[in-house]
Formats: sequence, C-alpha cells, structure tokens
Amino acid sequence: MKFGGTSVAGPEQIKRAAGRIVAAREAGNRVVAVLSARGKTTDELVEQAHEISPRPVAREMDMLLSTGERISCALCAMAIHDMGHEAISLTGSQAGIVTDSSHTKARIIDVRADRIRQALEQDRIVLVAGFQGVSTDSRDVTTLGRGGSDTTAVALAAALSAGVCEIYTDVRGVYSADPRIVPDARKLAQVSFEEMLEMAASGARVLQLRSVEYARNHGVRIHCRSSFEDGPGTLVVSEEETMEQPFVTAVTHSDAEARVTLTGLRDEPGVAGRIFSALADANVNVDVIIQNEPVGDDQLADLSFTVDRDELSVAREVIDRLGDVSVAVKAEEQIGKVSVVGAGMRSHPGVAAKVFQTLGEQGINIEMISTSPIKISCVIAAGRVADAVQALHAAFELGDDAVRPEGAGGSDQTSTVAG
Amino acid sequence: MKFGGTSVAGPEQIKRAAGRIVAAREAGNRVVAVLSARGKTTDELVEQAHEISPRPVAREMDMLLSTGERISCALCAMAIHDMGHEAISLTGSQAGIVTDSSHTKARIIDVRADRIRQALEQDRIVLVAGFQGVSTDSRDVTTLGRGGSDTTAVALAAALSAGVCEIYTDVRGVYSADPRIVPDARKLAQVSFEEMLEMAASGARVLQLRSVEYARNHGVRIHCRSSFEDGPGTLVVSEEETMEQPFVTAVTHSDAEARVTLTGLRDEPGVAGRIFSALADANVNVDVIIQNEPVGDDQLADLSFTVDRDELSVAREVIDRLGDVSVAVKAEEQIGKVSVVGAGMRSHPGVAAKVFQTLGEQGINIEMISTSPIKISCVIAAGRVADAVQALHAAFELGDDAVRPEGAGGSDQTSTVAG
Repeated sequence: MKFGGTSVAGPEQIKRAAGRIVAAREAGNRVVAVLSARGKTTDELVEQAHEISPRPVAREMDMLLSTGERISCALCAMAIHDMGHEAISLTGSQAGIVTDSSHTKARIIDVRADRIRQALEQDRIVLVAGFQGVSTDSRDVTTLGRGGSDTTAVALAAALSAGVCEIYTDVRGVYSADPRIVPDARKLAQVSFEEMLEMAASGARVLQLRSVEYARNHGVRIHCRSSFEDGPGTLVVSEEETMEQPFVTAVTHSDAEARVTLTGLRDEPGVAGRIFSALADANVNVDVIIQNEPVGDDQLADLSFTVDRDELSVAREVIDRLGDVSVAVKAEEQIGKVSVVGAGMRSHPGVAAKVFQTLGEQGINIEMISTSPIKISCVIAAGRVADAVQALHAAFELGDDAVRPEGAGGSDQTSTVAG
Repeated sequence: MKFGGTSVAGPEQIKRAAGRIVAAREAGNRVVAVLSARGKTTDELVEQAHEISPRPVAREMDMLLSTGERISCALCAMAIHDMGHEAISLTGSQAGIVTDSSHTKARIIDVRADRIRQALEQDRIVLVAGFQGVSTDSRDVTTLGRGGSDTTAVALAAALSAGVCEIYTDVRGVYSADPRIVPDARKLAQVSFEEMLEMAASGARVLQLRSVEYARNHGVRIHCRSSFEDGPGTLVVSEEETMEQPFVTAVTHSDAEARVTLTGLRDEPGVAGRIFSALADANVNVDVIIQNEPVGDDQLADLSFTVDRDELSVAREVIDRLGDVSVAVKAEEQIGKVSVVGAGMRSHPGVAAKVFQTLGEQGINIEMISTSPIKISCVIAAGRVADAVQALHAAFELGDDAVRPEGAGGSDQTSTVAG
C-alpha cells in the first residue's frame, strides 16, 4: 500500500491511512506500506536549501529531502500502535532499497528486503519511507527523484512477490479523460501497463511513468485507489489480463508545453544529435520532434520540438550556447497536446483518421503529430486543448452510460488525467 | 565543534556556523562539527507526534526527532560547499555512534568512527547529526535525550582524540553568576570538570550535565564559546590544568523548584526507599532531600525533598499512589535554590559559614541545605533568589574588576548561569 503526500498531509489523514493499513492487516494480509512526505514538506525543505545555496550539492540535497518521508512513517507507526497493532517504520536504507549513486535521481539496482521479511514474520506492519535508498558504493542516502515513492512501492511489491501494489491518492482511479474538462469521463476498471505508460507520458498524473515501467517489467499488479473513499479504483495489469480491448481507452492532454523551432538548420551530420544531447545534459525533457526534409539548393532544414513550458528558458539558453546551428530560433509558449491512447488501436487502423477528422470538424489546427502503436498525439494551440479533449472523448464514445453508474462526478479536487 | 539550535536557527546563522568551520579548517585543523536541530524544529516535531498520539511509541519518536539534526547538517554542508570546501554530512548511525536500545534516552556504548576518519583523510569536513545514534541489537535509530548533541560532540572528540571540543552557543561562556541578575558577573576563563558538573547540576545551563561527565571520564577539553562573537570563551579542563583555585568560582541558582514535605512518615524500614524508587520510575528528578530524626513516642519522622516545579504534579500523583506512607503531604511551589561552587572550597573550611552569614544578613531564611566537597546549596524562597545571588556574588568578591576587562556586559540574550 502506498500513500501519497495529500493522503498523509495532516493528522486526520495520517490516522485515516493508518486505519486503512490496519483494516488490510485485519483482513488477513501481511502489509507493507510506503509513505510519501506530508503535503508541502518536500517543497519546504527545497526552499530551506535554496535559502542557503543557489545550487545545493546533490548529496546533501538527498540527505535533506529524505527526512520528509521518515517523518510521515514515524507518525503513521504511532497511529497504528494506538490502534493496537505493532508497526515499525524503516528508512529506505533500512528497508534494503539499494540504488546507484546518482544523487537526486538515483535508480534502484537491488532490493534486499530481509529486514522487512523478518518484521512481517514477527506479525508487524512495516512502514517504509518512500522516494529514497542507499547507494551501494558509498552507503550514502539517495533519492529517486520526484514521485519516486511510487517506484519504491512497486519495487518492494516485486521483491516481496506481493499480490497487489495499491497506490492511494486523492483521486478515485484512472479516468477516460480529465473529469474537470469532460464531466462524463468514466473511471476505468482496468488499463494495461502499455496504455498506462502512454497515458503517464502524455499527461495523466495519477502514476509515475517510472513506476509503471518497473511494474510492467516485474509483473506487479497496481491498483490505483482513493484514500478518501471506498470502492474499487483502477487496476493496471498486463495486457493478457485485461478483459476488453476498446480501441481507444482514454484521452489525455497537456496544456503547458512550448515549441521551439530552428529554421535554416545547418545541414551537417550530427547537428540534431548535438542539439538533443545538450538538451538532455541540461535535463530538458523533449517531447515531440519534427524535422522537415531539407529543401532548396542550400539544403537547409527546419527542426521543431516541444518541451514543458517551465523548461523553455533553459532550452533556449542551451541552444544559444551551441552557437551557430541555425538561421533563426523561434519559441512559442502557448502550445498544448492532446492524445488518444488504447491498446486496441493496433488492430483498428482507422483511429488516426478519426482523430484528424474530429479535430478538423472543430476547426482545430494540428501543428505536429507523434504516434506509437497504441497512441496518437497531436500538438495544438494551448487554448483549444479543452475543446479537443471533449470532442475526441465524445467521438470515441468514451463517456459514462447508464450501464456504468460508478462514473466520475467531475468533482475531484485534483484531476487524474491532467496536464 | 558543536553548534546548538540557536546557532543554526536560520539561513544566516547556518552560513555563519559554516564560516567558523571553514575558518578552523583553513587554520590547518581537521574539523568534525556536530549540529543540533534548528531553533524550534524539535518542538515542532514533538507537536506533530502529539497531534497523532497522546503517548507516541518511543522507537518511532526517535525516528521522527532524529530528522531535525540531519536537516541542519545537510544545509550546513551545502553552505560549506559554496565556500569552496568539501563537506559531508553523516547521520548518527553513519558516524558510528552506537547506543543501547533505550529509545528517547539512549546511552552511547561505542563510537566506531572509521567513516569519519576516512573522510578526514580525504580532506573533507565532516558534519555529524547530533543527539542520535543506532542501537547495537536492532539497528534502530535512537536519540540521546534533550541536549544530547553536547554528548555526541564530546564522545566524538574522545574517540578521535581531538585537541579540543568547542561548544558554540548564544552566550560567551560560563559566568560567575547569571549576568541578568548580577551585572558585574565575570566570564570565567576556565573551570574544572568537577566545578562544571556542580554548576550544571545546580542551575547553570550552558553545558549538559551528561556531556561534562563524559568529558571528565575521557579527559576531553571543552571550550564553551559564542557563535556570534569572537574571542575566547570558557575552558572546561581537568583540575590539574586549572591555573588558580579560588575557593569560590561561581554562584548558581534555580528559582523553579518546589518542595514536598511528608509529615508523620511511617517508621518502617524501606519507606524512604519505596518513595524515591517510585519517583525515579516516574522520571522525577529529586534534588535536595532532608529527613528529620524521628521524635516522640510514636517515632514518626518528617521527610522533605525538592523537585523541578514542572514535575510537582507528577510527584504528588506518585506519592498518592503509594497509599498510606505518611500522615500528611504538603507541597510548596515557590521554592528556589542558590549554590556556591568552587574547587578551592575543599581547603577553605570557612565557606559554609560565610554563606549562612551572608544570607542571614539579608534576612533570607535557609530552609534546607545540601553540600558536596566543592558546593554548598541552600533552599530558600523563590522570591529571594535574586537577592541571595547578588549578596553571595559580592561577599565572595567574584565580580569583574579593572584587571579583567573582558567581563560580562550583562546583555546576553540568554543567560549562562540561569535557573
């Protein structure tokens, strides 16, 4: 069971999480729970670091940030004790989460869960501080990057051969679209790992991309549920386990992207490689890329790519530092993206056509397209994203119907499928 | 070097502490610094625990509280990096502070400082989270109790054979009396371990009693200094090292005591033992004890003792639970204590007489007396404590004179020698 930051934000939420954990134990399960830092704790720690140093050294940033999850775990263990159960909290290191030494973005390389197994044998509930581990070589505290607690939970579920990894958040599950934009969006009973990967990559925020990858690679069943309501959420399982394969499962979106266009790119081998290597070195996530065929006598090409709007200024700096790679650089800030995702798309070739047609009928101009076997993404103006999501959701008939009364009320504080 | 909570309270204070550490390194020293939690951090964490549980389980309390010092160390390491030096922060566990399993009041049983030595060899400054360790048997995080960071610093100084253990606080050193009460109180250039022990036990707050004991047992020289001002503070050294032995060194006081009197105590063997065992089990610190000779045919005695005023209600409960041990129990809340401390007292038998005479001249009634070879304490009314301190300080001529221009200004925010 994994509880996110809003699920442990205050004393009442922590007690509620403790209640859920105890209920699962009393139902006969052995329970390991992974906790995130409380509400704004991580942000506050980051702020403290920036009060001290403009560029805090990464090793110490990890020592600092790892305290947030430990606080959550210790407090939750106290609450569980008051409910008459034995609980112990463990740091990532104590729980055997072994990582490489890439501070602030470490990768899990081993899970040595002996201490957890021992505690479970002693009938204890085990609480593990998420988001952190210990590096093999230097025995330093490491962190897995934002959202790393999901990965901690999935990695422990894999190492312990858990029946299920339940991810508790402030939303009820994964929806066919953002309920704030599409009031009749439907909560999905299940999605495949592949679909969830595409959805996470294209705007859905309910699960961290990395944790879904880890779950797919290790066959860990994920159940996304609400901390605040009962009832089933969304199961993320292997494609063989999914009951039905509608050709489109969900519409996801992002309205916080920006586009950079380099016109008159110098036609030398490796220019694009230089550009994208430099962006990767600066940790800029590039999404959709399009390069036109070189035209004319001078063989100059145009190159466009999209990035998170937050990263636009860094991207521009990186390109400026590269010097004379193109005739001109243009940045557009109001760029969005809408995607349709569905495993059944593979056997239904007409989906792309229907997407383009639907957007065309709405007068929405498609500026870039990117596809995978189970996803079609269109880059469009940010101002038209809501229209596009609504039109596509309706066109593919993804909405709630009378047969499924559990659909989204559209009143969730935070959206599942949000940009 | 050890920095207390007020010395790392905000970003400016942390940078100043980092500056002092770097200066010591640049002067050619190898430096290990122990840091406390920032300002109110520990209180805030305790409050969070009490929001969850009325009696938080001790193991989890330690997991919770140990985060405060880690935050200080990580932030200070960042500041040192920005000053061009390599620093690493270590948790108590990483620093090799091994304790017993008495959560919230663990005792250090071993210091395995290999990792610190290795880092020092690599020319690094080492920052250690104070107040915490790891238990031998269960490898759990433990804490040493309030003020435990002083003990961490002294224990590391002993294990590393440090030249000196510098304790930085918000006062300039140890004074001949509380400068808020005695404006011409003198900063002491040095005191012996034995004197410091008596002073810490009788109201001086500048050093933790336990850390002074540890320093005496392991021969660690302590230097109490100000974080905010330059210049020497007070050296705490072995008696052989002290230059002069004035027969009285300082006047200390406490005005937050209370007295419990049991009249008509039952004259059975072990009654007093039962009372004080029960008080000890309830963690009530008993200070001065006086039992009158049994008088009359019924052989009933009177027993009085003093406790911290904060602990009076617990003490009364403990005695009530013991049942029928005396005819009546009386509690007085406005009790204070004044003490004169000095290693030279051993060879000057007239000190006690002068104390009694001085207080008598002020019309101050002495209610109880307790002595050691180097200390005389008198229990008096709380309202007369300031008068008593001033009179004794003057009578023993402890004040600043023209020869010693470095004396106390009396303007310290927090007093060195305070009840």
